[in-house]
Amino acid sequence: MNINNRITQLFKIRYPIVQAGMVWVSGWKLASAVSNNGGLGLIGAGSMKAELLHEHIIKCKEATQNPFGVNLPLLRKDIDNLIDIIVQENIKIIFTSAGHPGKYISRLKENGIIVVHVVPNIKYGLKAQSVGCDAVVGEGVEAGGHNGVDELTTLTLIPALVDALDIPVIAAGGIADGRGIAAALALGAEGVQIGTVFAATVESSAHENYKKKIVECSGIDTTLIFKKIGLVRLIKNEFANQVKAAETAGATEQELADLLGNKREQLGIFAGDFQNGMMEAGQAIGLVDKIISVEAVFQKLILEFDKCISKISVTI
Amino acid sequence: MNINNRITQLFKIRYPIVQAGMVWVSGWKLASAVSNNGGLGLIGAGSMKAELLHEHIIKCKEATQNPFGVNLPLLRKDIDNLIDIIVQENIKIIFTSAGHPGKYISRLKENGIIVVHVVPNIKYGLKAQSVGCDAVVGEGVEAGGHNGVDELTTLTLIPALVDALDIPVIAAGGIADGRGIAAALALGAEGVQIGTVFAATVESSAHENYKKKIVECSGIDTTLIFKKIGLVRLIKNEFANQVKAAETAGATEQELADLLGNKREQLGIFAGDFQNGMMEAGQAIGLVDKIISVEAVFQKLILEFDKCISKISVTI
Repeated sequence: MNINNRITQLFKIRYPIVQAGMVWVSGWKLASAVSNNGGLGLIGAGSMKAELLHEHIIKCKEATQNPFGVNLPLLRKDIDNLIDIIVQENIKIIFTSAGHPGKYISRLKENGIIVVHVVPNIKYGLKAQSVGCDAVVGEGVEAGGHNGVDELTTLTLIPALVDALDIPVIAAGGIADGRGIAAALALGAEGVQIGTVFAATVESSAHENYKKKIVECSGIDTTLIFKKIGLVRLIKNEFANQVKAAETAGATEQELADLLGNKREQLGIFAGDFQNGMMEAGQAIGLVDKIISVEAVFQKLILEFDKCISKISVTI
Repeated sequence: MNINNRITQLFKIRYPIVQAGMVWVSGWKLASAVSNNGGLGLIGAGSMKAELLHEHIIKCKEATQNPFGVNLPLLRKDIDNLIDIIVQENIKIIFTSAGHPGKYISRLKENGIIVVHVVPNIKYGLKAQSVGCDAVVGEGVEAGGHNGVDELTTLTLIPALVDALDIPVIAAGGIADGRGIAAALALGAEGVQIGTVFAATVESSAHENYKKKIVECSGIDTTLIFKKIGLVRLIKNEFANQVKAAETAGATEQELADLLGNKREQLGIFAGDFQNGMMEAGQAIGLVDKIISVEAVFQKLILEFDKCISKISVTI
């Protein structure tokens, strides 16, 4: 994997492989391991209060000399506190999601921070570009966790984004092996963001039950729920069935919000309660069959990618 | 595009590009044009009675010397009559969908017919292989028209199918340009099936209103309806909104079937009634921006593919 493009240059990384910022999964251990192996690790601030984020940033700095970043869901009420920490700790790479970066970008840019926004369609891609984002992650509906309402798949979203934007596009959703990375680059992406594969690594801070579920399940074992109150892809379980049944019966937004309650992600991913929690994962779970180290993931991805490109190169 | 693999050999075609059999769209004109340009054209029997299919087969034979096939939805009540015509007219390539080929395959194989089955998941892929199909089309949820309930996207379905099966896999759903073909091959597919792009060609027998809608719309303009009675992807319109509203309110299967009524596809695709008909199309509509000839489509696909592969080949 010998790639030198705008994404490797932007982040000063060897491979254009970004590890998705994931709640209860991507702390300093996972992020630093990814960065140490030549990718870009992201600390997922979504499940961290400001103090905890601070701690993870400090530990991540100790664990790697390479660039790493922080994923920041913009709908957080304490967003300004989180940004304070990021600025104070001299973090230079931020991936924003779940909200519009326009409100925060001037402060981030003033502090020399590279800002990448996660988008599910062209409209938000153009908006991110117009406010000054350095790149976007185009995330298809096969991705785990929160999803855009348009339900565009990676295969159709990426080329359309690449055609519409001038800034580089990172492909996310459904990418789990070297073939997927090659496909994403063929579509015009200059990098990939991988979630589910890293969620099941040794260095992921998720519960073993969650990692085991990812390994055991096949692609058909995820589903989308909460279309009315915030679409999310998770592994099918008792809770998802309840939500589906409520949705099919025409439940209101309030009824669905009550059903969701609090801390479902923590319960599933961090506490390992399969039946009652939410174990978010992408359709790529069908391509993950072992809990391995981040180093082993990188070896595998690079080998598969090189094999795939060698094979496809003879077709012209 | 210099590809010699099991799919080009199986069908004796120059390019591993199959035109999807589409109701009210793919008659002899479209199928013969695709075959004349080096792909595999399919007559879509889904909207034809036996006599009409017979007529289209005869005209297609007159219009091309190259191999072409017939797409056969197995849920048709007059399926035996359709197969009679196919056998009588010495058609050697059949793509089956919407049902299980096991019941019919021995008669088809006795007559030396190549049988390819369209599958939305690994389970049906293994089943198709076990009864003796020569290949499968793996169709992701981004595809237009009828879809599998698992809603697997092409990006995750194809590599999983390739790993699970010994017979070759053709990728369908979301492929609209040379980048998409390159991506599909990177994922391990040995061919692609393209629908929406060909639906908007000059040779498509669809109504001009339908072709124009495909050109005008972007990827976010399709939606999935009828999850309870047979999932279908179509361009968003008044009718789709009605169905969505009924689904959100918890409509029963019978209520939905009543709402569907009859001939909605004919009304939309063939009669050009946008508001009341069903204009089936895939998310790839976002990548189609002109009504052009089949010949121009092939020139475009090959040029884009070669450009894409040249670019990606330097990454190892």
